[in-house]
Amino acid sequence: MTTYQAPLQDIRFILEHLADREGISRLPDCGDASLDIVSAILEEAGKFAAGVLAPLNRVGDTQGCSFEQGEVATADGWRDAYRQFSAAGWVGLALPSAYGGQQMPKVVSTPVYEMWSSANTAFSMLPTLNIGATEALAIAASDELKAIFLPKLVSGEWGGAMDLTEPQSGSDLSTLRCSAQPQSDGSYRLAGQKIFISYGEHDLTENIVHLVLARLPDAPPGVKGISLFVVPKYLVNADGSPGAKNDVRCTSIEEKLGIHASPTCSMSYGDSGGAVGYLVGAPNSGLQTMFIMMNEARFGVGLQGVALGEVAYQKALAYARERVQGRDAVSGASGMPIIGHPDVRRMLLTMRAKVMAPRMLAYVAGGWFDIARHHPDAAVAERHRRLIDLLMPVVKAWNTEIGNEVTDMAIQVFGGMGFVEETGIAQHKRDLRISTIYEGTTGIQANDLIGRKILREGGATLRLLLEDMRTVANELAAAGELAWLGADLIADIRTLEETLDWILARGKSEFAEVLSGAVPFLLQLGTVCGSWQMGRAALAAQSGIAAGRGDAAYLQGIVDLARFYFGHQAPQAAALSRVVMRGGVQVVAATDAAFGGA
Amino acid sequence: MTTYQAPLQDIRFILEHLADREGISRLPDCGDASLDIVSAILEEAGKFAAGVLAPLNRVGDTQGCSFEQGEVATADGWRDAYRQFSAAGWVGLALPSAYGGQQMPKVVSTPVYEMWSSANTAFSMLPTLNIGATEALAIAASDELKAIFLPKLVSGEWGGAMDLTEPQSGSDLSTLRCSAQPQSDGSYRLAGQKIFISYGEHDLTENIVHLVLARLPDAPPGVKGISLFVVPKYLVNADGSPGAKNDVRCTSIEEKLGIHASPTCSMSYGDSGGAVGYLVGAPNSGLQTMFIMMNEARFGVGLQGVALGEVAYQKALAYARERVQGRDAVSGASGMPIIGHPDVRRMLLTMRAKVMAPRMLAYVAGGWFDIARHHPDAAVAERHRRLIDLLMPVVKAWNTEIGNEVTDMAIQVFGGMGFVEETGIAQHKRDLRISTIYEGTTGIQANDLIGRKILREGGATLRLLLEDMRTVANELAAAGELAWLGADLIADIRTLEETLDWILARGKSEFAEVLSGAVPFLLQLGTVCGSWQMGRAALAAQSGIAAGRGDAAYLQGIVDLARFYFGHQAPQAAALSRVVMRGGVQVVAATDAAFGGA
Repeated sequence: MTTYQAPLQDIRFILEHLADREGISRLPDCGDASLDIVSAILEEAGKFAAGVLAPLNRVGDTQGCSFEQGEVATADGWRDAYRQFSAAGWVGLALPSAYGGQQMPKVVSTPVYEMWSSANTAFSMLPTLNIGATEALAIAASDELKAIFLPKLVSGEWGGAMDLTEPQSGSDLSTLRCSAQPQSDGSYRLAGQKIFISYGEHDLTENIVHLVLARLPDAPPGVKGISLFVVPKYLVNADGSPGAKNDVRCTSIEEKLGIHASPTCSMSYGDSGGAVGYLVGAPNSGLQTMFIMMNEARFGVGLQGVALGEVAYQKALAYARERVQGRDAVSGASGMPIIGHPDVRRMLLTMRAKVMAPRMLAYVAGGWFDIARHHPDAAVAERHRRLIDLLMPVVKAWNTEIGNEVTDMAIQVFGGMGFVEETGIAQHKRDLRISTIYEGTTGIQANDLIGRKILREGGATLRLLLEDMRTVANELAAAGELAWLGADLIADIRTLEETLDWILARGKSEFAEVLSGAVPFLLQLGTVCGSWQMGRAALAAQSGIAAGRGDAAYLQGIVDLARFYFGHQAPQAAALSRVVMRGGVQVVAATDAAFGGA
Repeated sequence: MTTYQAPLQDIRFILEHLADREGISRLPDCGDASLDIVSAILEEAGKFAAGVLAPLNRVGDTQGCSFEQGEVATADGWRDAYRQFSAAGWVGLALPSAYGGQQMPKVVSTPVYEMWSSANTAFSMLPTLNIGATEALAIAASDELKAIFLPKLVSGEWGGAMDLTEPQSGSDLSTLRCSAQPQSDGSYRLAGQKIFISYGEHDLTENIVHLVLARLPDAPPGVKGISLFVVPKYLVNADGSPGAKNDVRCTSIEEKLGIHASPTCSMSYGDSGGAVGYLVGAPNSGLQTMFIMMNEARFGVGLQGVALGEVAYQKALAYARERVQGRDAVSGASGMPIIGHPDVRRMLLTMRAKVMAPRMLAYVAGGWFDIARHHPDAAVAERHRRLIDLLMPVVKAWNTEIGNEVTDMAIQVFGGMGFVEETGIAQHKRDLRISTIYEGTTGIQANDLIGRKILREGGATLRLLLEDMRTVANELAAAGELAWLGADLIADIRTLEETLDWILARGKSEFAEVLSGAVPFLLQLGTVCGSWQMGRAALAAQSGIAAGRGDAAYLQGIVDLARFYFGHQAPQAAALSRVVMRGGVQVVAATDAAFGGA
């Protein structure tokens, strides 16, 4: 069985032609992102992902984690792999050099994270938690807390954890109950329960740094009364080493559909007097800080859609080239690998298009993070910050919805063998299924897109984006054999504008009707973003071929894939627009009996 | 946790208003399908499904089957449930009264089978195998074989099994290798291996009747050289009781993504001299007989899409009514169950529409089977046989593709709890995932639709169907507030005709291009069939309300659901048509490099 190989050619094409790796490498505070260095990083990461992480993926799935008396043991080989991973400095790849990181720009760390996730999603979640915890502490924590925790998080010696959810408080954090009592020494004592805490307990690091949302005694109700605390599993000695066990423990782990090797923990704080915690940032400002981590986490989850789609696609492609079955529909010849069947070709191209389009969007958005943070021209930075805010729900939700379709289709390509767990192909589907749920469901992303990102500003940023898209569409329309892509894209942009106008006109008066179309609208926007990026890719490939630069066969493949995307995926956009504008009223108007008598 | 309740109101509505239960009850040889009897059967079946089978669903999933020294043990409680099931006569509900069955028409047995499958799909597969084996033997076997095997299969004392697939021979049966040597006593000795044999070995019945495809020594190559044999697990004594063990054994069972409780067996024949088998029908005519079983089986698999969609929907609806999370987007009120969120309403209505539309199509097609077999007017019978042949690939593939979307969406409604196996909601998705694969993948169904069912006869039956649809569309267009449904349906029928014309024009010259759009075309046809049936349902409900007949609230719910279907699902049809007509050429033209460098 083929396992994972890093898609370096695809990654380089997107970084160089679409995501402006070169421009970003010239920005201040973006590490050394020169072509040579980046190529070396990608190659090394690819080797590590394929050689160390991928072989542990199935053992993680079959063994899962074991839980005994509050302790979680990861699967065979995982401790050693994590030791190698952190020793090689991978945890700190994009983290601040001030704390020991390499400070590479996000446009570079994005494909690297994709590789970890392709090779072994359950494993890849732990370093993501370190990144999120580091970002939150770096922005909001006191210098003392930074000095204690950041070097250990950046090196990966200690693990991070985000402790948000409670049984009654999932998507809606306003009902959090976990409490924090101030102590005379300036610390706090936390008490309460959390659930669904990824890597809340494990044996991979010598300490675990929990970032916990809780309420102070005098906190106002709702989300305005939430504070953020850092609660280490082991209290930290004066010399920085882990000391006494803190009053926080894992009470159980979940048996899940996928990511078996990533422990999903129920946590209890304060069973013996209170878990020692330290306030991060101002009282009652926890949610803002957590949002910083959540934006990172959402981006990371969006990448999981690409990553698991990629590995599932690789395996499906290899299987379709090996498996001999049936006759050629045209010639009648037997002994043909199934990739020769038109419908199998269609499935494989669908999968590849649904990996590449979201990947392009994710890498481009990754580059926008760098530009927003580091561009010396404040207007340019601000423009990119707005674009990220607008499209983050799309990168999270569209990429994962699409990725779920890809991993599902991989099972289909495998036929009966796809249903047999031994082949490993179903695992990717199972692992990815959570991605449209955690870090905010697709519905929540879509409401965020409609409410905070569009209605609140009257659609201004989306109109900016549409202008960018129109520029590409016009280029395509003048690009010879790509002209029909341009014409299609122009029509889809116009439909998107009409849909936007419809939303803006009804945003106040018919809010429920508009929200009934929030997910279809997000998918419509994602689909058109895909056309936009595929169109850019086709233009870049076409001009490469014309100029005799690069691998001509590869570039022709990109043109072919863009044409396929326009032929097969793009037509969804108009249908989704129709659903948004005509379907919402049916959702609102449906009587209770429409839901049936069950 | 809510488990399953039989949706009797929906079933009755469809049987009485769409599937012509009453007309069929007046046909010869259709048992007593009067309203009273059918109501009693449905109610009893509903009780058995909910009370006996549903409680064993999760234990079957968690325990699966155990395999030791060639023997398969089913999960706790299964033997007793099967004993009750067969003792109550459920196996023979639709089987010939000549062999002890009740000979109910298919329009009645269809909803009953749906209930078994909703409650416990893994369990429901065994009686389906008995039905298939009975049909094949009743048509093709000698009177002697019928006398030995049919009463035991109809009573359920013995189980059926269909032994087709071999490792090298899955979708394509032309490469079968299993061999049968004639013996002087008129029997045969079989040797070879089979894989993926559902219920090939188990402990629920005292004997297992394998129908095995194999080749005679002088058989021509390919599918024209396949013969069908009956191979009992235990040879049958002169008094009809099971005797010596035959030379057929189970060598392993698969670890699968779903339907854990249904043993998927690798079988070996003839390890000790040859498995005794008896020829069914003429030599080398095995495939025709097997096709009879496969048509039945395909219909049954299509129903699984409805059945698992239904139970997943019921649980999602109950969860959405219980789970409190978030605030009302319009009023800001807290403490609201999540069904109050517009996107959750959208998901639930999507699920219900995607259960009801395929259910309507399946019950209507079930009724066509009865009319085709029993209608005294040969022309009417023939017309319905043609419609069944045309739409069987749609009932199989569209229903299961749609059902997979429903079971997936149920996980989404559950949020994080959907990923936790304890809730049981993910099991329905896992169980259903095989349905688009076994008994012919969606791709194979679509090729069958395009090749054998459309091109071979120049689209004649599809044009008949389109006329039936147009009649409904015209009625809708004249039906007051339903007029827009009629206008939409007329447009979708026209687009379907254009797509058909496009297919017919290119069927010979551009066959690969046409086949590249086979699945999108099948889904387009399915979507329009859904509109057609939803339109019929809305008309029936509207006239019921106007006449003051029936449960007015329920009937209004049907109208609402039809409107939702037209608002949300129907727009897919035009997009799919575009994919068929413009996308195929991209599949054919794509260079190897379009598949990427992995």
